[in-house]
Amino acid sequence: ATPLFYKMAVDEPYMLDAPTLAERDQQTKRAEAITNASPMRLRMEKFIKEQQVEIVRALEAIDGTKFRVDEWQRKEGGGGITCVLQEGKVFEKAGAGISAVYGTLPKAAILKMRANHKNLVNGANEIPESIEFFAAGLSLICHPRNPMAPTIHLNYRYFETANPDGSSGAWWFGGGSDLTPNYLFEEDAILFHKSLKDTCDAHNKEFYPKFKKWCDEYFYNKHRRESRGIGGIFFDDLDETTADKESLFAFIQESLKSFVPTYTTIMNKRKDMPFTEKEKEWQQIRRGRYVEFNLVHDRGTAFGLNTPGPRVESILMSMPLTATWKYMYEPEPGSREEKLEKVLREPKEWV
Amino acid sequence: ATPLFYKMAVDEPYMLDAPTLAERDQQTKRAEAITNASPMRLRMEKFIKEQQVEIVRALEAIDGTKFRVDEWQRKEGGGGITCVLQEGKVFEKAGAGISAVYGTLPKAAILKMRANHKNLVNGANEIPESIEFFAAGLSLICHPRNPMAPTIHLNYRYFETANPDGSSGAWWFGGGSDLTPNYLFEEDAILFHKSLKDTCDAHNKEFYPKFKKWCDEYFYNKHRRESRGIGGIFFDDLDETTADKESLFAFIQESLKSFVPTYTTIMNKRKDMPFTEKEKEWQQIRRGRYVEFNLVHDRGTAFGLNTPGPRVESILMSMPLTATWKYMYEPEPGSREEKLEKVLREPKEWV
Repeated sequence: ATPLFYKMAVDEPYMLDAPTLAERDQQTKRAEAITNASPMRLRMEKFIKEQQVEIVRALEAIDGTKFRVDEWQRKEGGGGITCVLQEGKVFEKAGAGISAVYGTLPKAAILKMRANHKNLVNGANEIPESIEFFAAGLSLICHPRNPMAPTIHLNYRYFETANPDGSSGAWWFGGGSDLTPNYLFEEDAILFHKSLKDTCDAHNKEFYPKFKKWCDEYFYNKHRRESRGIGGIFFDDLDETTADKESLFAFIQESLKSFVPTYTTIMNKRKDMPFTEKEKEWQQIRRGRYVEFNLVHDRGTAFGLNTPGPRVESILMSMPLTATWKYMYEPEPGSREEKLEKVLREPKEWV
Repeated sequence: ATPLFYKMAVDEPYMLDAPTLAERDQQTKRAEAITNASPMRLRMEKFIKEQQVEIVRALEAIDGTKFRVDEWQRKEGGGGITCVLQEGKVFEKAGAGISAVYGTLPKAAILKMRANHKNLVNGANEIPESIEFFAAGLSLICHPRNPMAPTIHLNYRYFETANPDGSSGAWWFGGGSDLTPNYLFEEDAILFHKSLKDTCDAHNKEFYPKFKKWCDEYFYNKHRRESRGIGGIFFDDLDETTADKESLFAFIQESLKSFVPTYTTIMNKRKDMPFTEKEKEWQQIRRGRYVEFNLVHDRGTAFGLNTPGPRVESILMSMPLTATWKYMYEPEPGSREEKLEKVLREPKEWV
């Protein structure tokens, strides 16, 4: 292939009989407003975009510093917006990113995913060589300056595949939110868990206990034999076997919307508390453990970094601004630092 | 099983007909001095112990601060000595650890290792359920305070399996050393590589080009598309197909012994150089990349953390004291920071 032929192949791709999922969605977005009758892909994308604006506005109000906003496109289809506030007055680093991407799942991935999603190939007799997919999500992380204020993380996402005839194939929601304090304030832990439990309970009484346990199991820093933080909720693969799409979307929406009031309440109490140098040091050690979890155990990070052509800066916006590793650091017996470690070693029921 | 029975089982293990490799080596060490006629296991262990003392002495002389020394035992057999100097005058953190451990390889591991070591099961018709093994090594890492002074890392190790009759089975050496500057001083890069090349060349002219390339490939931070540093040498599986055991042991000894003079020369030139706050910040960003490599890509670290009952603090002594992650940090065009990045993106021939 000569360079000329290569250029032609890139600029004028061979068109399949049917337009791709990305092309059809682009067409819909140009032609009409997104309503409750639109495909869930576009509704989810619209929702997380709006929420990103809300969240950025709320965090800017707490900090008094503006976020930097980067829009990016993915060569393979779709793109995202990464908003980061760095070295603010209240936050060392806060990041809120959304992405909505299109792609194709190779056969190996289809075979793996089919274990959890029976209708992934929609009753076809043969596994196809590839399936088109759409994935959209919002990720958020806040690392405050004050060691009394907790780090928070959340992620809500939607995944959908396309059938060969262009109709929607399998779909599911995933997500969750977890809190990582350096010092334990029981009232914060209770407020955080209660807010998540209330949202869960309004949809399904089984959600909170199940998702709380899932969260404790997922955010576990195995090599340290301790949890990353005091948990929250975590779930994946929520599809029609759990509830209908509308109900699950409502659940996702309310879960995500509960972030701003809850975290604002906690931050208002903690952001200006006095602290010592030793407490700041402990925060930095806990940040090191956060880095360890994200780089060693987090499947989302590993998946992101191993994707072809990843936007590394968006994936690693979860890294704290600074972190410390001290050899053989041991909290003093009876100290507040030791009290936190105990809670991390044995997850508690907070509500 | 009652607690009493459990205690008995631990204190008085059921003895197999033949003593284990660990028991036999203990006996040998009690009965006689280690000489050139002793098993390689004991000679390697003795050698790395002596070298650890030499290295600790040399680094203490540079820093003026004493190392902390921790001896530890592994329940499953063997143990080690971890020496760490933290928050010294010259080093933010320096660690020199040795370990000599005994254990058994399960069948799955034997099957994997056999690909590189044909005589692992020594002509047996059937793969045994397990094989006893011995592994000993010295690991070293130095993170200096001064951003003009480079981080250095080395590791030299020996691995051996036992045949069912008690004789030595397969064996091999592995190791290497690599340099990670924040600012490029060509004379340091040349000195470091030349010292390794000279040692290699004295044994086999093919070693340096082969091991230099292997190092560039291994210490590659794939998701960043850059090398961890400016390389050095890296090798594994050096067994009788490369050279006889005595020659390879001599090569390992000389490689390890070349560390003190080379690194002392470099540190004496760099440790007191003036630097700006911005240069310190760049060092901290580079430390973040070091953490990323070690936690995301380094097979040694992953292996260590996933071993049952790991001594986490010894494995993670390689972490810098502090590290920084800044979103979208870009060195200025034409700056010394950019110059380093260029070298990390395209490994150079230094000698």
